[in-house]
Amino acid sequence: MSSCYGRNIKISIFGQSHSPAIGVVADGLPFGFKLDTEELAAFMARRAPGSSDLSTKRKEPDSFKILSGLKNGILCGAPFAAEIENSDTRSKDYSQFKDTPRPGHADYTAQVKYDGFQDEAGGGHFSGRLTAPLCLIGGICMQILKNEGIHIGAHVERIAGIKDERFDPVNISPADFSDLSQMALPVLDSDAGAKMKEAILDAKELGDSVGGIIECAVTGLPAGVGDPMFDGMENLISSIVFAIPAVKAIEFGAGFDACDMLGSENNDSYIVKDGQVVTETNNHGGILGGITSGMPLIFRAGIKPTPSIFKAQKSVSLSEMKEKTLEIKGRHDPCIVPRAVPRIEAAAAIAVCDALLEYKKYK
Amino acid sequence: MSSCYGRNIKISIFGQSHSPAIGVVADGLPFGFKLDTEELAAFMARRAPGSSDLSTKRKEPDSFKILSGLKNGILCGAPFAAEIENSDTRSKDYSQFKDTPRPGHADYTAQVKYDGFQDEAGGGHFSGRLTAPLCLIGGICMQILKNEGIHIGAHVERIAGIKDERFDPVNISPADFSDLSQMALPVLDSDAGAKMKEAILDAKELGDSVGGIIECAVTGLPAGVGDPMFDGMENLISSIVFAIPAVKAIEFGAGFDACDMLGSENNDSYIVKDGQVVTETNNHGGILGGITSGMPLIFRAGIKPTPSIFKAQKSVSLSEMKEKTLEIKGRHDPCIVPRAVPRIEAAAAIAVCDALLEYKKYK
Amino acid sequence: MSSCYGRNIKISIFGQSHSPAIGVVADGLPFGFKLDTEELAAFMARRAPGSSDLSTKRKEPDSFKILSGLKNGILCGAPFAAEIENSDTRSKDYSQFKDTPRPGHADYTAQVKYDGFQDEAGGGHFSGRLTAPLCLIGGICMQILKNEGIHIGAHVERIAGIKDERFDPVNISPADFSDLSQMALPVLDSDAGAKMKEAILDAKELGDSVGGIIECAVTGLPAGVGDPMFDGMENLISSIVFAIPAVKAIEFGAGFDACDMLGSENNDSYIVKDGQVVTETNNHGGILGGITSGMPLIFRAGIKPTPSIFKAQKSVSLSEMKEKTLEIKGRHDPCIVPRAVPRIEAAAAIAVCDALLEYKKYK
Amino acid sequence: MSSCYGRNIKISIFGQSHSPAIGVVADGLPFGFKLDTEELAAFMARRAPGSSDLSTKRKEPDSFKILSGLKNGILCGAPFAAEIENSDTRSKDYSQFKDTPRPGHADYTAQVKYDGFQDEAGGGHFSGRLTAPLCLIGGICMQILKNEGIHIGAHVERIAGIKDERFDPVNISPADFSDLSQMALPVLDSDAGAKMKEAILDAKELGDSVGGIIECAVTGLPAGVGDPMFDGMENLISSIVFAIPAVKAIEFGAGFDACDMLGSENNDSYIVKDGQVVTETNNHGGILGGITSGMPLIFRAGIKPTPSIFKAQKSVSLSEMKEKTLEIKGRHDPCIVPRAVPRIEAAAAIAVCDALLEYKKYK
Repeated sequence: MSSCYGRNIKISIFGQSHSPAIGVVADGLPFGFKLDTEELAAFMARRAPGSSDLSTKRKEPDSFKILSGLKNGILCGAPFAAEIENSDTRSKDYSQFKDTPRPGHADYTAQVKYDGFQDEAGGGHFSGRLTAPLCLIGGICMQILKNEGIHIGAHVERIAGIKDERFDPVNISPADFSDLSQMALPVLDSDAGAKMKEAILDAKELGDSVGGIIECAVTGLPAGVGDPMFDGMENLISSIVFAIPAVKAIEFGAGFDACDMLGSENNDSYIVKDGQVVTETNNHGGILGGITSGMPLIFRAGIKPTPSIFKAQKSVSLSEMKEKTLEIKGRHDPCIVPRAVPRIEAAAAIAVCDALLEYKKYK
Repeated sequence: MSSCYGRNIKISIFGQSHSPAIGVVADGLPFGFKLDTEELAAFMARRAPGSSDLSTKRKEPDSFKILSGLKNGILCGAPFAAEIENSDTRSKDYSQFKDTPRPGHADYTAQVKYDGFQDEAGGGHFSGRLTAPLCLIGGICMQILKNEGIHIGAHVERIAGIKDERFDPVNISPADFSDLSQMALPVLDSDAGAKMKEAILDAKELGDSVGGIIECAVTGLPAGVGDPMFDGMENLISSIVFAIPAVKAIEFGAGFDACDMLGSENNDSYIVKDGQVVTETNNHGGILGGITSGMPLIFRAGIKPTPSIFKAQKSVSLSEMKEKTLEIKGRHDPCIVPRAVPRIEAAAAIAVCDALLEYKKYK
Repeated sequence: MSSCYGRNIKISIFGQSHSPAIGVVADGLPFGFKLDTEELAAFMARRAPGSSDLSTKRKEPDSFKILSGLKNGILCGAPFAAEIENSDTRSKDYSQFKDTPRPGHADYTAQVKYDGFQDEAGGGHFSGRLTAPLCLIGGICMQILKNEGIHIGAHVERIAGIKDERFDPVNISPADFSDLSQMALPVLDSDAGAKMKEAILDAKELGDSVGGIIECAVTGLPAGVGDPMFDGMENLISSIVFAIPAVKAIEFGAGFDACDMLGSENNDSYIVKDGQVVTETNNHGGILGGITSGMPLIFRAGIKPTPSIFKAQKSVSLSEMKEKTLEIKGRHDPCIVPRAVPRIEAAAAIAVCDALLEYKKYK
Repeated sequence: MSSCYGRNIKISIFGQSHSPAIGVVADGLPFGFKLDTEELAAFMARRAPGSSDLSTKRKEPDSFKILSGLKNGILCGAPFAAEIENSDTRSKDYSQFKDTPRPGHADYTAQVKYDGFQDEAGGGHFSGRLTAPLCLIGGICMQILKNEGIHIGAHVERIAGIKDERFDPVNISPADFSDLSQMALPVLDSDAGAKMKEAILDAKELGDSVGGIIECAVTGLPAGVGDPMFDGMENLISSIVFAIPAVKAIEFGAGFDACDMLGSENNDSYIVKDGQVVTETNNHGGILGGITSGMPLIFRAGIKPTPSIFKAQKSVSLSEMKEKTLEIKGRHDPCIVPRAVPRIEAAAAIAVCDALLEYKKYK
């Protein structure tokens, strides 16, 4: 049972959707770093619902309270801890799902795993709300990384089959990240964004939902970060990205597309540019043998459509062991993808920050 | 720097392609289990090269020697350790790659990471040969799991763009696995297999290489295995599967395809069948909230084309910091995908076995 | 930088003496257990200062707030988290110790380690106050263990050289623990206790302090718990007991005394009693080869005298790099030993609970 | 079930006393370090039996074979692995102990833990022989540390109640370590050594055994190494030292003696000496708050008398559940203490090396 992650930055996330509070402890963050709490709050706001007509009307202000780890606003070496109070909770909405599990949710698997003792309210520990503490630590890691010239950004690469442009894998610029972070639906191609918005609202109208893909890039990483085998960058990133609810797929660089290429097409030639060894193309997504090459690190995460839909669905009554039609009410996002963008960035930031500390032990 | 994996079954893999030996220690395997070493050798043979005209002519018999962990052929609770001697090594082939790194390989990233101290011969610790110890432990885990009614199998879902059928995600049968394990190129559709073979030989002819996708399934898993957040089944499996060289992508259930679906299409309805709660479809790939649902666990891993090709490639001389044409000689697989099938199965087996022990702590 | 412990029960402790709050997250506690919060509060009260004239007058009510992990008062499988607000803090008392470190405290070592960024107020993360979260989880573990017939108790074996009787290592009874837990100065021999109290008050009068030894026992443990080598019971217990400030020594069973014995004296003969295999004596302290024997597990922890004394002491000014006389004011315990008793019990409970879960994986 | 240790240097020890081989994998050793294999063999020889009339006549040459991790004799970043073949084994000696466990050994606890599946021959995985791989990695760590000006040495502080002098805790010099490492019975006071030798031979004559205490010191450590709470130097060292068979106690600095002192006696005053902050005395054993102070790190480990004695002992037949007299034959050390000296040094070296890598992440 693990809500812990990390070798160097050890995070421990706690809380249920409707428990008194949710939060996180992070041990091992570098000390001496001055935290910008306003920037952190702004990052958290990107994850919070209620900010646009694309997401649920639930208000989760996510105003966090720092409990420890700071001295005069500076990381002091003691574990950083913060909590977010749960206020706007409506537990009554969820009681039925213990007996009649929602398709696509963790209701059934949690029921079996915890012998019925799990807290089902609001999805309990499985709620997307638990990504708020992840974003909190991720936001701190992004500040630490930025201070070392490492930038992380992401955009919606696809929603409901509508594709955005992809990042230029070779010449991607951190300036793009800054623009993207201002958008409710962060895309490179605004036309695609408009169509995506339409598709989301269409699904909403029908009581249905849509999914999509998020593309994330990390620039400014030195070559040599990451370890062989089980602690390669792909391993570290995937093992944290799959902690974000609804993620069902991940690919690095050219990813699945590379599988259809010839070796001569997929191999990225080395060249010398501005006195640096770089690759001409970046199908490897900045990672070879688990270790960074110095090229932008690029990955895409696939997000399934929100399982909470308002259409009637087939389910079963576990107590009666017979089929039962389920109708979900309440407030739910027709598409979680835009709000998942900062979650993906946060997850990447934590993995990269952890790998960077590992790297420093030997330098 | 980690070649260690696992919470309950802790494996530690050692060796370089041309070091005296490679091997593995596995701590925490259940005791009292009688190992079938012939079956294990047969599993290992599926990974070894030289067994068909599709793979390199290098002979790596992979005959392992068990060093500890057994008493009268039964796992005795002490750590299991085994080694495979390295015999057929030609170190001279690799000296040039320290200065002129091969595109798509870890030559350059290892050179930077280890300040030139890495063992470059045969790819050193980054060699695909290091998957032999992984297969050894994976093969043991498969036996342990089989004993509990849990079966793991995989097939080549795609090579060079040529697609095999997919597993029936709902009704997949362990009997299929048995057939697949006998094939040099394990596919469900033999016509597709013939075309794949052709594509591999074409690439070989051209001194080029091709990649592909492997689909893996686990049947017989009880519901309730796996943990939320960072220790979900997707996290556990991806973090070990990316340890296999050339894997660049992974997806569970409907995976990336799910991202284009509506929620009402992707959600798997619950029904009661033979007194059991099951889902009608299996887009979730047997995992919800990181926890098994009792449905077959299904994932696909994307394997990039072998980076070692015989065509001339652009690289750089690191000492001279100028571009240099690279021509690779020697013995290399034009396609690693068929031999990666048992590797994927092995990785899945270890992750599943580890998760199952975790599950038992609380039952 | 680790304030994390455990393989199966993973605890992460946060907070500084004067940060907004201190607290703990514990992941992996068995679910389905009904917590007795009153009993937990009573256990916590044993640790808190201000309860007798033997300890500081600082009031630390230690009233904890449970943030997550419960559903209707029952452990629900999600991580348990709780916080204790810091209220009665007087930060001004500590500012001088950054420049003039207190002998015997972590002031100097923390200053060097954290380059001066540490939170020095009240001892920061090094404060004895941080044992409150440890006691919180330890108290929960004691309830869980009690439910399985496993009891943990401790007494003051020595203060200022005055010795209490020791536990009867063979026939120790949980009933003794119950009595001890009611005493401000828990001893088996009340005369010894009276003398210890006198010695503490004498030291207080002189502005000095005294140390002592705590003896702890665990009864009802089945044989077979604990693992060889690095995860033996001695390893698991010592690695958490040394987390308690001022502990400088630990011994199991006959401990250092065994070193002067002959093998024939120290070896504990096996006998059959009531149909059980037991040992006649218990010099091994219930542990052989790291694994429990079924006999009471017994260890003693040595607590150094409180470093905060009111006598003038020699120290240095770090900024001026010259010697400087230090006089400590404020509220400090002349003897921490009585209040350390529940800390030791808590630490033992966590280690034992963790080992027991490990044991269950294979049973 | 863990024979794994470490956060940064991850060691995994394998083998049973009579399995084909014993050995170790160590992941995370710093790369680029040239190993002195002769020095390593000399260190290993100190642990091996048969070198003096004080120890068993069993010949365990401990000639190790390095399997991986080196390139041209230099640590190359890949996991280091080595094995020691088991040759001189007489399994027949041990068969009886499965039914009639030897007092003081792990025979009974292993039997219960592993349901009889353990390898009992020669003590199996619990054999003192398994400290050979520990010494192998410890010897490497000592070389790495020496290269950074950090030296580790130990001596027999006591055998059978006969006391050697102790290290001068303030002015201890690495030169002393060099002398001690040449002695079969390393002591500071040769008269005490002579008496100890006599006591060992007396015990041998009687078919009995004696125990003792080993004092170990680490010099040259910078201040600031080690972490608060669970990863303090006391925690790290104790959790590895208790992996050495027969260790039942550990104390740091003044240890248990400190418990009888007044705070004013035990506190070590800070002074400035040669432009450095040091303490006048060293009751704290170089550790405050878990973190090194820059003073010599000092600890003592208590070793119980060898449980294998030739005198008749009371035990039980587990199959018949009745008492049975046990007479042990074969070759056994009357005192393991002298040979445990390099084991203690090795354990300390691994813990310190691991802590030093942790320290470097943040510097």
